[in-house]
Amino acid sequence: MTIDSDDPPHPGPLPQGEREKSASAARARPNLRQALLSPRSVAIIGQSNDAAKTAGRPLKYLRQAGYAGAIYSVNRRREQVLGERAWPSLDALLTANAAFAEPDLPVGRIFAASHSGGMIGTLLSRGKARGIGFAGLASVGNEVDLSIGEICASTLDDPDIDAYLLFLETLRKADALRAFALGAAARGKPVVAYKLGRSSEARELALSHTGALAGEDDVASAFLADCGIARVDTLEGLLESLPLVARIPIASGPLRPRVGVVTTTGGGATMVIDRLAVSGVAVEAPSAATLARLGEAGIRAAPKRLIDLTVAGTRYETMKAALDILNAAPEFDLIVAVVGSSARFHPNLAVRPIIDSAGAKKPLAAFLVPEAPEALARLAQAGVPSFRTPEACADAIAAALKRRAPKPVVARTLGADNTAGRLLDAIEAGALLDRLGIPRAPAVALDADMTRAPDLPFPYPVAVKVLAAAIVHKTELGGVALDIGDGEALVAAVGRMRESIARRQPDARIDRVLVQPMVSGLGEVLIGYRVDADAGPLIMVAAGGVLTEIYRDRTLRLAPVDLAEARAMMREVQALKALAKYRGRPAGDLDALARATVALSQLAGDASVAEAEINPLIVNVQGVVAVDAFVRLA
Amino acid sequence: MTIDSDDPPHPGPLPQGEREKSASAARARPNLRQALLSPRSVAIIGQSNDAAKTAGRPLKYLRQAGYAGAIYSVNRRREQVLGERAWPSLDALLTANAAFAEPDLPVGRIFAASHSGGMIGTLLSRGKARGIGFAGLASVGNEVDLSIGEICASTLDDPDIDAYLLFLETLRKADALRAFALGAAARGKPVVAYKLGRSSEARELALSHTGALAGEDDVASAFLADCGIARVDTLEGLLESLPLVARIPIASGPLRPRVGVVTTTGGGATMVIDRLAVSGVAVEAPSAATLARLGEAGIRAAPKRLIDLTVAGTRYETMKAALDILNAAPEFDLIVAVVGSSARFHPNLAVRPIIDSAGAKKPLAAFLVPEAPEALARLAQAGVPSFRTPEACADAIAAALKRRAPKPVVARTLGADNTAGRLLDAIEAGALLDRLGIPRAPAVALDADMTRAPDLPFPYPVAVKVLAAAIVHKTELGGVALDIGDGEALVAAVGRMRESIARRQPDARIDRVLVQPMVSGLGEVLIGYRVDADAGPLIMVAAGGVLTEIYRDRTLRLAPVDLAEARAMMREVQALKALAKYRGRPAGDLDALARATVALSQLAGDASVAEAEINPLIVNVQGVVAVDAFVRLA
Repeated sequence: MTIDSDDPPHPGPLPQGEREKSASAARARPNLRQALLSPRSVAIIGQSNDAAKTAGRPLKYLRQAGYAGAIYSVNRRREQVLGERAWPSLDALLTANAAFAEPDLPVGRIFAASHSGGMIGTLLSRGKARGIGFAGLASVGNEVDLSIGEICASTLDDPDIDAYLLFLETLRKADALRAFALGAAARGKPVVAYKLGRSSEARELALSHTGALAGEDDVASAFLADCGIARVDTLEGLLESLPLVARIPIASGPLRPRVGVVTTTGGGATMVIDRLAVSGVAVEAPSAATLARLGEAGIRAAPKRLIDLTVAGTRYETMKAALDILNAAPEFDLIVAVVGSSARFHPNLAVRPIIDSAGAKKPLAAFLVPEAPEALARLAQAGVPSFRTPEACADAIAAALKRRAPKPVVARTLGADNTAGRLLDAIEAGALLDRLGIPRAPAVALDADMTRAPDLPFPYPVAVKVLAAAIVHKTELGGVALDIGDGEALVAAVGRMRESIARRQPDARIDRVLVQPMVSGLGEVLIGYRVDADAGPLIMVAAGGVLTEIYRDRTLRLAPVDLAEARAMMREVQALKALAKYRGRPAGDLDALARATVALSQLAGDASVAEAEINPLIVNVQGVVAVDAFVRLA
Repeated sequence: MTIDSDDPPHPGPLPQGEREKSASAARARPNLRQALLSPRSVAIIGQSNDAAKTAGRPLKYLRQAGYAGAIYSVNRRREQVLGERAWPSLDALLTANAAFAEPDLPVGRIFAASHSGGMIGTLLSRGKARGIGFAGLASVGNEVDLSIGEICASTLDDPDIDAYLLFLETLRKADALRAFALGAAARGKPVVAYKLGRSSEARELALSHTGALAGEDDVASAFLADCGIARVDTLEGLLESLPLVARIPIASGPLRPRVGVVTTTGGGATMVIDRLAVSGVAVEAPSAATLARLGEAGIRAAPKRLIDLTVAGTRYETMKAALDILNAAPEFDLIVAVVGSSARFHPNLAVRPIIDSAGAKKPLAAFLVPEAPEALARLAQAGVPSFRTPEACADAIAAALKRRAPKPVVARTLGADNTAGRLLDAIEAGALLDRLGIPRAPAVALDADMTRAPDLPFPYPVAVKVLAAAIVHKTELGGVALDIGDGEALVAAVGRMRESIARRQPDARIDRVLVQPMVSGLGEVLIGYRVDADAGPLIMVAAGGVLTEIYRDRTLRLAPVDLAEARAMMREVQALKALAKYRGRPAGDLDALARATVALSQLAGDASVAEAEINPLIVNVQGVVAVDAFVRLA
């Protein structure tokens, strides 16, 4: 049974209000899954009398498919449609899609859900060509009422559904999606997703505020990953990845899974290795012990990443021996077998040993380099995850290996500082950092009209800036002065500052200035927290400065994060490599940076803060120091 | 007729010397093409008597294919093989590949060449499944003798060959490949290539010297692009791209081709647009005039990048009208039509109008979102470039649009300074920059044992460094001092420098030091020239500093480049965006940087220089200044 509601609203017999009413009625039912997927009766809104029209198809397809329940056609202008009785008002919704004409569909154990209605037909037809059937499919369009998350959640306890496949256009109704994903993970039912939007023009936006994150693709990636959903990057990867994802346990720690590759064709296997490496998945060379065992089996594999059987010859015994040895080798977590021309004409040589190894304890995947549909069908029947292109193979492997355990949702309670939407000034923001335990530069507030500088609790040189949350672009307005050597220079600098701002932003009132010691270190980074409208609380680490904006070099997680997660984030920001020990320079204290990230991410439990950004956070050989912070209340 | 020589050297009846001799004999023949592709006789070296063995197949397959010429089996141990006479010595070479068993191969007008023998079978079988035939195929293994370039060049004037498809593992014998590519371009025969090695561990190497470029993938990309070869990134893109590449004229200038997309399914089309954008190809929105014309045809397209016919409905007239309007719209250079579910069951609705538009003056490509083999076959028969996956579609479009005219090979003559392998010292390097017309910071050489600093031709503060080409890591050895305020400090700094180096590198002799004014500007870049062992003379532009090493942010071309090419290079280095006008900062003089790049690339005509790198080159609001240069003679 399939559901599709992605057809655009036709300017005709369907008032929007009635559509919504009918959908709400569906939600109010006690058993959503049954209503959606095994309805006892169906109402067709706007059923046309012309079977050639889109609006004529639902009744036609339901009758053609032998639907056994009651069908109520709704048409405000006709008393009969296609020879059957029609009603002038409505009870329920369904739509039409040419894909429903697909005959002889295989039935499977995957439930598919899509924002795009057009993709339902694509999943059906491409799946059929691969022998992949579905337990059900649903498309939801703009999710005016029911969302992908709600529909999928209603099927979680269906014993006929083992896994989920999602085609997403946005992160709309992400809370429901996350709740469903947590439920799927709890039941051991894997979820893979393809999501549009890797290239949004949002990429061109600056990184200056975490506010600019909204709708960006790496937010979606972080969200899906922290929901335990495997995100694929190719259409064929979406169709072909579930058997492999289902076989690979969710990564439980920072240890990188290790992939071994055996092949009868060097060129074909290198296509997969190349693409895996670009995706950040490294293929491992066999250990000396494994090489020795291969040698005993007559396989002279060179000590390199690829175990190439070309010299040994394409024979059943050779491939089977190689697979047995790799399965027993402790250095590999996943084995990939790549078979060349023999897969097309002689599948017994190198494909059958793969089938015969399918029961081994390690996950095994196969890529057949030539066109070899019969061998692929045999592999699929034996339950071996197998792939038609090097791109889909690498895509599925990377998605499966990168899948991580979903994070629980953290309750958010309102703190004391609930003054809606207000920006904190630097002194207030400093107090928040103190509360979170994030080290910051000392600071004192001085009257802006002072004529003599008081003694400071830290030595000169100092930096001074106007203390006014309302002035966002302090530097551009002349509201920041650096490297001030003594008290006299400080008073003069503050005087110039007041003049400059009075001239450029006459309405701004400058009562106080903030004085801090000059702080320098090995490097500067930015850490940011934000409640994203779609994804919820997020924590970000990025390098500061213009180059980071250009390279979009940052990492994101749903907040809060623990120390292990924060340490993993440190490995994902390219610029932080410059803070590692390098050409005789000392290394920056990335662990202190990770601790500060954990601390900032704790804001996820505090519903009073909407956004907090520390920029720059100075990284030293020992410790980190926050120099400036921007905080906006909820 | 197919050629394959990629089988590994068997440790048996085939002495390497004889293999080489036979191949050389083939090269000495007056007509290489005939010898390779239409031989009158064939000698099979090491033909086995066992038809089940790899070494038994050549004779079997030649007989099976009905080869009409003479066959000479060579076997040093037997007088008969497979019931035929065998000879104990050899005359020529051929090999065995299971792919030769492929029956009913379509014949086409594409010549394919591959380093990997295994890929020949893949091209044959995957091509056959798509109705793609070949005029010939050759694999060359390690190119011990004949290279891909030589073999393809021998077929250039074959009237039965229209285009070339290459599967490359390396850039071995690049001169021959380049000569072939120039010949193909001169004859209007397009060449597409897939090359392994995007992910080499070489990525982890530092960028400090252009010497580290060797074997890196962006060198191969620059080489292929400057040969006029379209490089694809996916296996299916390799198979499916030639019809489109052949239809798109080579880009003649910096103007970016503009792509228009029309679809019956928003989700399916967005998959292509997303991937095109990631590849740097922007899809354009229709102009107001085009939107108006679409409106007159009953197509209410929103003013956005995608012309979505979903609301208008999937009908022949709608798609045809949309294609006609887009074909007439001056804002598009290429039209992409994406068809949803109707392509599978009702190709007359949206696929036939594409076929009927194939004769229009603008290139047109089609992606069918569902599994739709019949519609694809109809499109292929009509000569419409068409694709099975969004990834292959975007890959082929990007490769076709980025193809540029090949560069002629420049003759290299020896200059005066031919002192083999020597490093120039800073004064000599400065003289080279003067000769090339690259502005540099003034510099004077002083005796290292001076007791009083002479008057300098520029004001203090100055920088001083030891003048000794043999000392490469000057900074690490204490051989550089910056920001020296007066003559006394200069003498003291030189004294400390001599002590430091005497202690750390006692064999180094410090006679002179180089003094320069302190130079600063808006930013620093690196420009480098190098004669690559594979690709030949190369010019590179990169940003300096550790971040650039991390981000691998650089652009390469075969040298020399003209000003238009150098300006295009400026747009390809991400870090240079930081030198554009930004947040009130003035813009750097990127045109002066382009002129310096042109000047340095002129070294391609001077065979006496092996490598030259200017780092840093300071970019100012007006002009650039070279501060330090490293030059190695050939």
